[in-house]
Amino acid sequence: MDRLQKQIEFILEADKVKNILRMTRIADGSRRENDAEHQWHMALMAILLGEHTAEEDLDLLKVIKIILIHDLVEIDAGDTFCYDQNANLDKKEREEIAAKRIFGILPKDQGEELKALWEEFDEMKTPEAKYAAALDRLQPVLLNYMNQGGTWREHHITKEQVIKRNKPIENGSPKLWAFALGLIEDAVIKGYLKEAGEE
Amino acid sequence: MDRLQKQIEFILEADKVKNILRMTRIADGSRRENDAEHQWHMALMAILLGEHTAEEDLDLLKVIKIILIHDLVEIDAGDTFCYDQNANLDKKEREEIAAKRIFGILPKDQGEELKALWEEFDEMKTPEAKYAAALDRLQPVLLNYMNQGGTWREHHITKEQVIKRNKPIENGSPKLWAFALGLIEDAVIKGYLKEAGEE
Repeated sequence: MDRLQKQIEFILEADKVKNILRMTRIADGSRRENDAEHQWHMALMAILLGEHTAEEDLDLLKVIKIILIHDLVEIDAGDTFCYDQNANLDKKEREEIAAKRIFGILPKDQGEELKALWEEFDEMKTPEAKYAAALDRLQPVLLNYMNQGGTWREHHITKEQVIKRNKPIENGSPKLWAFALGLIEDAVIKGYLKEAGEE
Repeated sequence: MDRLQKQIEFILEADKVKNILRMTRIADGSRRENDAEHQWHMALMAILLGEHTAEEDLDLLKVIKIILIHDLVEIDAGDTFCYDQNANLDKKEREEIAAKRIFGILPKDQGEELKALWEEFDEMKTPEAKYAAALDRLQPVLLNYMNQGGTWREHHITKEQVIKRNKPIENGSPKLWAFALGLIEDAVIKGYLKEAGEE
């Protein structure tokens, strides 16, 4: 029962991620999305879009594990807006401390496994981490497109910034990147996103 | 690109589940949980609690697929409160129509796979469906316990009703059922849940 007790404690601690709001709004634009919703949506995408990755031996279960826990550190470290350069300076340090505490709640073997998966995600080197990172970027691109530019308009983000931020989609899946680029171009045409250099 | 277009359309349709509110409140009691959060939370539990199932050859990826899509039908059919006997009379029929429309958005092979998984879940016969069904019940028990009885108090649910509703946890995992029974007993002692027959 000791192991189960620790697992339940972690499961209840993880519940707090439902209160961590991201910058992105849900597709209908009515409110900001939280990390639990984002992680569910990405996991669903992982199941459906696997055929578009370049990798042949992708371990889909591992991808999903990575996705389901990749933002838990934000319970302590908060959501860091990807276009906020200052906030991103100490992001790694803040999240490292959070990972130690949060994954430390679990039985040792499970805590170590999840912490290692979180680090693997951060490094974006393995096929699974590259695919998860691609989905982590594609998901908000879809939502921003759906709600007429959402975060992009609100924070005066340019096409150039969006392309730079989302380029890692290409490492996970050239096909998904081609699709994302199409959406980004269309967002400019529709006035959801401004070209670089405009005022 | 035709397949991808259908997959993206489904992914955006699925976004609506973030607006489907369940009766249960999140652990801190501040607001009702939605289906996207519930599905994420259950998937996380599936990863962590697999060792407590009675089944030896559990296909964890299949369990997670089932979990991630099991409430999508509620986009059309709405959330049916498990203790509302009248609403449950036509639940199956409403959800069947919803499943046909929603999974029908996907490319045929994927739509059929997900619809079959949803039906498998509903039948609660395979090891994967039994484990998913157990987590579908355990998760709100945890939340109701955490927020001092939440839905149970609000709707004057009795211990007897909670035990009847949650008994399928035992089919997925006798160990998790023993744990849930402990919480239920403790909820009665703490006054979160009333004994059967009390007024």
